[in-house]
Amino acid sequence: MSNKIKLGVVGYGNLGKGAVKAIKATEDLELVAVFTRRDPEALELDDPDAKAVHIDNAGNYQNDIDVMLLCGGSATDLPEQTPYFASMFNTVDSYDTHAKIPEFYQMVNEVATKHHTTAIISTGWDPGLFSLNRVMADAILPNGENYSFWGKGLSQGHSDAVRRVNGVKNGVQYTIPSEEAIEQVRSGANPELTKSGKHRRVCYVVAEKDADKAAIENEIKTMPNYFADYDTEVNFISEEELERDHSKAPHGGFVIRSGNTGEANKQIYEFSLTLDSNPEFTSSVLVAYARAAHRMSQENQFGAKTVYDVAPAYISPRSAEALRRDYL
Amino acid sequence: MSNKIKLGVVGYGNLGKGAVKAIKATEDLELVAVFTRRDPEALELDDPDAKAVHIDNAGNYQNDIDVMLLCGGSATDLPEQTPYFASMFNTVDSYDTHAKIPEFYQMVNEVATKHHTTAIISTGWDPGLFSLNRVMADAILPNGENYSFWGKGLSQGHSDAVRRVNGVKNGVQYTIPSEEAIEQVRSGANPELTKSGKHRRVCYVVAEKDADKAAIENEIKTMPNYFADYDTEVNFISEEELERDHSKAPHGGFVIRSGNTGEANKQIYEFSLTLDSNPEFTSSVLVAYARAAHRMSQENQFGAKTVYDVAPAYISPRSAEALRRDYL
Repeated sequence: MSNKIKLGVVGYGNLGKGAVKAIKATEDLELVAVFTRRDPEALELDDPDAKAVHIDNAGNYQNDIDVMLLCGGSATDLPEQTPYFASMFNTVDSYDTHAKIPEFYQMVNEVATKHHTTAIISTGWDPGLFSLNRVMADAILPNGENYSFWGKGLSQGHSDAVRRVNGVKNGVQYTIPSEEAIEQVRSGANPELTKSGKHRRVCYVVAEKDADKAAIENEIKTMPNYFADYDTEVNFISEEELERDHSKAPHGGFVIRSGNTGEANKQIYEFSLTLDSNPEFTSSVLVAYARAAHRMSQENQFGAKTVYDVAPAYISPRSAEALRRDYL
Repeated sequence: MSNKIKLGVVGYGNLGKGAVKAIKATEDLELVAVFTRRDPEALELDDPDAKAVHIDNAGNYQNDIDVMLLCGGSATDLPEQTPYFASMFNTVDSYDTHAKIPEFYQMVNEVATKHHTTAIISTGWDPGLFSLNRVMADAILPNGENYSFWGKGLSQGHSDAVRRVNGVKNGVQYTIPSEEAIEQVRSGANPELTKSGKHRRVCYVVAEKDADKAAIENEIKTMPNYFADYDTEVNFISEEELERDHSKAPHGGFVIRSGNTGEANKQIYEFSLTLDSNPEFTSSVLVAYARAAHRMSQENQFGAKTVYDVAPAYISPRSAEALRRDYL
């Protein structure tokens, strides 16, 4: 019997593929199966050792899996899947519809509390690591301002939202920060900036044959939470152009807090990521937080949790002694 | 009766002064008293509302203080003060002799566990926030390397160590990163660098009248943990020069992890600080972690703790609901 923490992966899109690779890069975690809505026999897994199982049979794995990594999208998958799986398993997800997190939390918390599971929601880098740094910087430097910038990069959540619009065959969305806004922040001017004032959103969309492009463009541009408040650009391209020019998923960004202490001493706190692959990094964060879900569940810390509730030691493969000796 | 968390500050050097200012910048914390080894009547506190008490009378304040912030130096103060105060109070300190942290932890843990107090050790930014980022980056990107760079900046712990050398009247120490090493890391080359290969240490020392300067220089350069492994430079200057040229305490640095995911996707994780005042920032971190010491103690989480054991929500003045709604 292996002492490794046993994981399942639900969904085999970009995030699920990244999760399978990220699990393989660890020494303390192992993949039991990938759960899919597709025909598992037909699913081509990158990893020859991995097993695909139909999602309807996941319930049979309650004794074999410590934590389920939920790798679906936030628009429609996770609002159904997280409560469903949290009734049977510890879970980790990357629910990223910021405006709806409080209700998502409440829904998941009720299920997980009732069924004695630990469900870590909204991990990844934003929400996730960026959220963590916003809160820590605010706690340490009360006299200051937080700024989060994203991109230039391809946004998983927003691309997912684009692809779910009626008549859209495929598509991607890039988030592009405003250079002018970045300059203002770095000057220490503490400007008042809205999220939509700091970024533009640019979509490249492949429409279904005979689809109403004007309707697609309108539905994207008016989509609440995702696009309605932004300067959004929608470009229609061919499947070939999408494949050729938009198949990579770079991303990044930074959280910066500019604050004062004492009389007028300026203190700049900054966290940044520069990512060749957004989904692989996001899934690497999910995989690290799977350790936390397993350990917190073993300590009867049940219910929905966020990155704010997780002591950093819980996500590390190393012992507390090793962390103090080698990393503190 | 105020609902604020009640704090004491032990020591009124740079760190203690910063702590008094940092407490005043919050809305949920209040200062009860500053405890000093000096004559409290003679201590000039920046804050007219603050009270100074002799350190020997601290024991009388067990019912009035929720957490003691220990603002002494790591070389000789904290190894005595942390166990002493942890037998009576929840504490937060910034013990920063990295090589001795395991034994310091064990000593404090025994006392705090026995007396049912919560003692958060080695907070600040390094150890502290940098440590946190080293561990999180390692947990998320197992295939990679961590690099920590410090400076250019004045190091509190090392200046303190210099000032405790026999014959030294006053002095400061600057840590200066190697430009060459930084270039290597930023290129993504993942070079093998030792801590001492990445930085130089430059000391400016005011000697006591008739002191043996050669002996001072030798004692500094051979001091274990602090200087022995480094390219260390010792300059003797006058008290006037020290006051004129070295009275500010800027610092900063960064933790960077360069790692790969999947086949060969490069992911760069970076945390950086640019500080006008190192002691004011360090004490702002201590003050934030005082919230955690108080809350963890209320939940019977006794013993010595490090930043790795503290869920981020514990350091924030905001409610869990507000964090999820406004920061996630």
